[in-house]
Amino acid sequence: MKQYNVAIVGATGAVGEQMRRILESREFPVQNLKLLASSRSEGKRLTWKRTGILVETLAPGSFAGVDIALFSAGSDISREYAPIARDAGAVVIDNSSAWRMESDVPLIVPEVNRQALAGHRGIIANPNCSTIQMVVVLKPLHDRWGLKRVVVSTYQAVSGTGRKAVEELMSQSRAYLAGEAINPEVYPHQIAFNLIPQIESFGEDGYSKEETKMIDETRKIMGLPRLPVTATTVRTPVIIGHAETVNVEFVEPVDVEEARDVLAAADGVEVVDEPAAGVYPMPIHAVGKDSCFVGRLRLDNSVPSGLNLWVVADNLRKGAALNAVQIAECLVENGL
Amino acid sequence: MKQYNVAIVGATGAVGEQMRRILESREFPVQNLKLLASSRSEGKRLTWKRTGILVETLAPGSFAGVDIALFSAGSDISREYAPIARDAGAVVIDNSSAWRMESDVPLIVPEVNRQALAGHRGIIANPNCSTIQMVVVLKPLHDRWGLKRVVVSTYQAVSGTGRKAVEELMSQSRAYLAGEAINPEVYPHQIAFNLIPQIESFGEDGYSKEETKMIDETRKIMGLPRLPVTATTVRTPVIIGHAETVNVEFVEPVDVEEARDVLAAADGVEVVDEPAAGVYPMPIHAVGKDSCFVGRLRLDNSVPSGLNLWVVADNLRKGAALNAVQIAECLVENGL
Repeated sequence: MKQYNVAIVGATGAVGEQMRRILESREFPVQNLKLLASSRSEGKRLTWKRTGILVETLAPGSFAGVDIALFSAGSDISREYAPIARDAGAVVIDNSSAWRMESDVPLIVPEVNRQALAGHRGIIANPNCSTIQMVVVLKPLHDRWGLKRVVVSTYQAVSGTGRKAVEELMSQSRAYLAGEAINPEVYPHQIAFNLIPQIESFGEDGYSKEETKMIDETRKIMGLPRLPVTATTVRTPVIIGHAETVNVEFVEPVDVEEARDVLAAADGVEVVDEPAAGVYPMPIHAVGKDSCFVGRLRLDNSVPSGLNLWVVADNLRKGAALNAVQIAECLVENGL
Repeated sequence: MKQYNVAIVGATGAVGEQMRRILESREFPVQNLKLLASSRSEGKRLTWKRTGILVETLAPGSFAGVDIALFSAGSDISREYAPIARDAGAVVIDNSSAWRMESDVPLIVPEVNRQALAGHRGIIANPNCSTIQMVVVLKPLHDRWGLKRVVVSTYQAVSGTGRKAVEELMSQSRAYLAGEAINPEVYPHQIAFNLIPQIESFGEDGYSKEETKMIDETRKIMGLPRLPVTATTVRTPVIIGHAETVNVEFVEPVDVEEARDVLAAADGVEVVDEPAAGVYPMPIHAVGKDSCFVGRLRLDNSVPSGLNLWVVADNLRKGAALNAVQIAECLVENGL
């Protein structure tokens, strides 16, 4: 089997670490793995299979001989280095928001729109974490009944912000329990035992960037540029695992039992839905898992054909690293 | 000014404590205060003004001479003792769900439907916490533009369950941070650093009791028995302060600026809405406050006239004890 030279840009971050683990656990055909990060991490040794790899400082010359470059180092780095990597001959799979809405950049969730990879121009975008777990669930329902409108509210984990946010939640929780003062650094307010209805900055329409991403990216991935979608995104004191209430209106009359079957048969989806037995998706059960978990399926009788859903996934895996590696797998199947 | 003999049933609970504090801080015209609880609390002394009152064991004879009885001891106690208190001559204001949907029991949020107190038969119901904070915000908007449909998702604090749930969140958080095992007792699953999409038990339609309450009670309080409403309710690792994303469709075309003005002028509502400055409602800011805080106002362009809102309130105060005392104040104004 053909082997590929792979680079991870942002290899020391929370998502970069997951990318390395998932490449290994899914036995991705890696010939050489290059771990790139800022100069602060230079010389750090990270495990790969039964050995260790030294982290190198990201530089314009880093991509010689690289076939696939997985980026997860923020939008600024992606905007600067993704074209450099592409021009050096690599196919870039970018986890930042820098390229997602460019018309010539495919925005891919393999279970939903892998066909949109055809004719890519060397940069492929990995969607926002909250968007991925929603569209994986919406796609099979859309194919069956036709989406009419989606109202989503998110309950997002701090690991989506990065390692420092996880440390902040832990240290604030400790401080609170000890009766000590809390000084927010990563977030604008205390996150321990609180809710912050802000994820990224706000636009003039009052929507946060995260909310706008969920609306725009859902339309692009689903290939429904006018799909009525609205979103409210909220940070919760959870470590790993984003959750969402998704209220869906359909064109055709939906049936709950059939929706359960349609979802159970869908790629990447796991139905966890025996609420009377206390069985429903939760962040603590999603950690380290590949699936998007869906439960709390109920008819919404406030519209002619409505369904309420509760969707949970590991935001670092399906929401980021796993989806990026799955895109790489599609590229390999397609011969890049 | 006329003074009243008041009893609190469930005086040692989280809501009962707030009732006592709020009666005092609002200078409710109390002649004698009677604190009633189960026999486990007998002899406990609780502060009242500059003195202390002994807790008495609730019994059928407890209500002799009582004018107003505030109940917050669960549905079973309310079902048994509210008629006894009423027959003894007291007006009962009941915080449980036992009587809320009875056709001859007014379900009251003073800012919304105090007129429904007229002709009461001795038992008045205090709505569910999540419902109260939503209808206080919906009422002025309905008066202006006409409600067409409401989709709500809740982010609920553990204090809504009671003192033991608060202790459970604290002790589980400590255990998690110390790397120790977590053994849920109050909730069916770990609540620390997690989300539980279950509040109370589930009906055959898949809705939890809390969700059904939000739908049914909203319709009754608003006097809109067919209002299309749907709800998903979720327990979050927050101590005090319920939050809600409320997506509203209107009959008439809504305007965001005017909605802000309408809400700012409404009784019991405080607009906190400068998101670019990091100013929006949050549980930590709502604790101990009387208002329902609303922010994140945005047009929802997925429907002809839609608005997204984020509503936060102290679930023990406006969500329970304060609203009950406000009902008592209305009764006093009406001459009981």
